[in-house]
Amino acid sequence: MDHNILRSTRELIDEVGYPALTVDRVAARAGVGKAAIYRRYASKAEMAFVATVHEQQLAPMTDTGSLPGDLLALVRAFHVRMAAPAARQLAPALIGELAVNPELKTRFQDTFLATEQAAFAEIIERAVVRGELDGPVDPAMAHLLLLGSLASALYILDLPVDDAMVTDLAAAAAAGITALAARHYGGPVKA
Amino acid sequence: MDHNILRSTRELIDEVGYPALTVDRVAARAGVGKAAIYRRYASKAEMAFVATVHEQQLAPMTDTGSLPGDLLALVRAFHVRMAAPAARQLAPALIGELAVNPELKTRFQDTFLATEQAAFAEIIERAVVRGELDGPVDPAMAHLLLLGSLASALYILDLPVDDAMVTDLAAAAAAGITALAARHYGGPVKA
Repeated sequence: MDHNILRSTRELIDEVGYPALTVDRVAARAGVGKAAIYRRYASKAEMAFVATVHEQQLAPMTDTGSLPGDLLALVRAFHVRMAAPAARQLAPALIGELAVNPELKTRFQDTFLATEQAAFAEIIERAVVRGELDGPVDPAMAHLLLLGSLASALYILDLPVDDAMVTDLAAAAAAGITALAARHYGGPVKA
Repeated sequence: MDHNILRSTRELIDEVGYPALTVDRVAARAGVGKAAIYRRYASKAEMAFVATVHEQQLAPMTDTGSLPGDLLALVRAFHVRMAAPAARQLAPALIGELAVNPELKTRFQDTFLATEQAAFAEIIERAVVRGELDGPVDPAMAHLLLLGSLASALYILDLPVDDAMVTDLAAAAAAGITALAARHYGGPVKA
């Protein structure tokens, strides 16, 4: 049923656009009751976000053996979803909505953002264990350097983003995170 | 008169919010005709953007003598305006509007974004001349690494951003830009 609700949501965003999307329309298209939708998603915005930008659970990240490799794998996985047409259509409207809807913002920060930052915490922990980083950089900062830049490119500036650019973003984030670790935990030689 | 229009715009955003802001109200408060406003700004959105986030012309950037120093000076200057309450209130709404208003988007990209990227081009050129970079990194990428992350922090994630964080963002961007120059122009040792 989940799959059905999310597919109907994506179809309707493509067909009528996010502003005209309603939970009623999704319920009718998916052949389910509205209650079934509200048991899963707190609002139209959350349902649309899960359908396009972001699963509720992130797939476990494989250990690629290096910080740059882990960051590249992560940003590639996010880029596929974040750059899809329905996501690019939804996200700017959702950004406007988050700013004026504190409940939606809290929910967004406590679920999706927390999940994303946890993925960065895991990648950073592995890099510290491997000896690639002098110490644990703030996952929120690492998240910002990689996915924050990507979100700006896609949703604020509306730039074309190809795999070469995503690869550069990952390389730059790896260097930035390494420099911050040296800055905060390193010895006399600081970046 | 410019100053007057922009001050009235900021006051009205603070008092009634961006959605209720109109060119009529600004004209009345500033004691000018609507035509005077439309000679300067193509739309309400542009007037509000100039009044809060961004002057039409950037102040010339001083050469601080190093790439990290130049990036820190630039991001501090932007942070002051970008983090002001009226800017934080306006920007998310404007992001939603840019996505559905192609004319506004073109105007935004051709003026403000181009001006910002030109500032990065200048900083990168100086760093290449100083020998800090192996070659000229794409200014659009440098812009994204520094101001893209900052915009995400302020306008998408609504994080508190203090000077320590801005300093970290500048240090990370300097390391990232240096790594990309090594990656694209460097010899056998690649970042």
